[in-house]
Amino acid sequence: MSELDEFLSESVRIVDGSLDKLIPSAETAPMRLHEAIRWSLFAGGKRFRPALVFAVGRTFDAPMEKLVRTAAAVEMIHTYSLIHDDLPSMDNDDLRRGRLTCHKKFDEATAILAGDVLETLAFQAVAEDASLSPDMRVILIAELAKAAGTPAGMVAGQQLDLEAEGKDAPIAEIEKIHRLKTGALIAACGRAGAIIGEGYTVEAHAISEYAANLGLLFQVTDDILDVTQTTEDLGKTAQKDIAANKATYPSVFGIEETKALARRLCDETILKLEPIDRPKKLLVDIAVHILERCS
Amino acid sequence: MSELDEFLSESVRIVDGSLDKLIPSAETAPMRLHEAIRWSLFAGGKRFRPALVFAVGRTFDAPMEKLVRTAAAVEMIHTYSLIHDDLPSMDNDDLRRGRLTCHKKFDEATAILAGDVLETLAFQAVAEDASLSPDMRVILIAELAKAAGTPAGMVAGQQLDLEAEGKDAPIAEIEKIHRLKTGALIAACGRAGAIIGEGYTVEAHAISEYAANLGLLFQVTDDILDVTQTTEDLGKTAQKDIAANKATYPSVFGIEETKALARRLCDETILKLEPIDRPKKLLVDIAVHILERCS
Repeated sequence: MSELDEFLSESVRIVDGSLDKLIPSAETAPMRLHEAIRWSLFAGGKRFRPALVFAVGRTFDAPMEKLVRTAAAVEMIHTYSLIHDDLPSMDNDDLRRGRLTCHKKFDEATAILAGDVLETLAFQAVAEDASLSPDMRVILIAELAKAAGTPAGMVAGQQLDLEAEGKDAPIAEIEKIHRLKTGALIAACGRAGAIIGEGYTVEAHAISEYAANLGLLFQVTDDILDVTQTTEDLGKTAQKDIAANKATYPSVFGIEETKALARRLCDETILKLEPIDRPKKLLVDIAVHILERCS
Repeated sequence: MSELDEFLSESVRIVDGSLDKLIPSAETAPMRLHEAIRWSLFAGGKRFRPALVFAVGRTFDAPMEKLVRTAAAVEMIHTYSLIHDDLPSMDNDDLRRGRLTCHKKFDEATAILAGDVLETLAFQAVAEDASLSPDMRVILIAELAKAAGTPAGMVAGQQLDLEAEGKDAPIAEIEKIHRLKTGALIAACGRAGAIIGEGYTVEAHAISEYAANLGLLFQVTDDILDVTQTTEDLGKTAQKDIAANKATYPSVFGIEETKALARRLCDETILKLEPIDRPKKLLVDIAVHILERCS
């Protein structure tokens, strides 16, 4: 097992333990709501966003116990967005992380409420994080809210994405959608790790740029995987973007050109780390790991 | 104009001004998202919850400028819950506050996202409230999250409410649903006003009990209005509970008995204020005002 693989599986273990404590048990009323949350949250997700919080946090010498609730909160926000994105009025998908989507397994109303309350629980988890000073907690909550919200965050990106369906969106628009829908929260993970390590003020710009680029790289490789992998490999419906007539990097540039773009993006992502005067191997490895998903 | 009426219309003016500043303009991209939020948020709501934050805050000598963002945040959470409750898979309603519901005016996906992001903006508003210490902000965020969340908050209540449809729920269950679905957030409004006025530690129990009772009173009078008023008076579909075969106080006890219950609840609510050694006229007036909605 490589150092990175070890780090990633340890990240999964730690964040899953925290999530299990933060989410009411499936035996707590209303049981159906908590079952639905747990169905979507514990579906074997890769926990890429928590891993990024941990990796940047470690780079900035933050102890694990100060990172774990923020990492869990980010995963809750991410999972809420997946549950809502899969709804019939949005992407209308039956499969996610290799199992039925929340509204398919339960029902639409329960899925909406499960997503709603995951968002609430995420902010609550950070607000009640006794390992961090209140000053730090409010900074983190504001960062996560901006990244998940509007006009510069995830929900704004999802709205633009829905509006772009069936239209021939220019590549600048596609990039903007990616940067908001996926990139903003991933960038916030990077910033959060640095904030908790109290490195944010000194090396703020670099780590934010690194994580924002990483988010874009993540989405570009996701677009490639959507075209090249089967539904079984992906654990979610493949070729969804084509079916929805969505403009993506591969639909505009073709697969090979998009792969070349991903390689350039990966190089740029790593370059962003230059001003940071700390051991950076883990952060470099993560960027390469994301690129290698589609090669 | 009575003193209470003046207070209530001043509350509306102040909270609406704050909401207008906190929500991106309808000209900010994605415009449709921000239009949808504004459609539902500025629909002439009575702003009862913000008024309660202001009233309790004033009772505890909190200056208005420290209360206003929290009051706005509560109204955002309330409005997000209305937008989602009205969706086809939930209460499936076309009318709210006298105009088309969000998903009818726009579309379902936009309505889901508008609700999602109102929740985000609510927590962001408190996290970035420079008039309050970070200590106070995290306490308020945690209070609002618990009240809006699960297992002891609004979303838990909405889930139980949906599950109770078509069933002969016992009155204890109806009360529990009311206490969670409506009462928890209203109780949090009371506590928030006291927390900001720094009176929470001394007179915590009393104000929390007052506000929780007030929330139940509010819901019981709402149930009565649902039966006795027309759709036009209500600005939302009347007799919805009957149509949904929902057990309510009037369906179990009849109208007259429920009105008597509301009067007793109002008396109890006012009694809860006894331990508080401050001018309480405003808080008493608010309880009476709610009772009088249905008499």
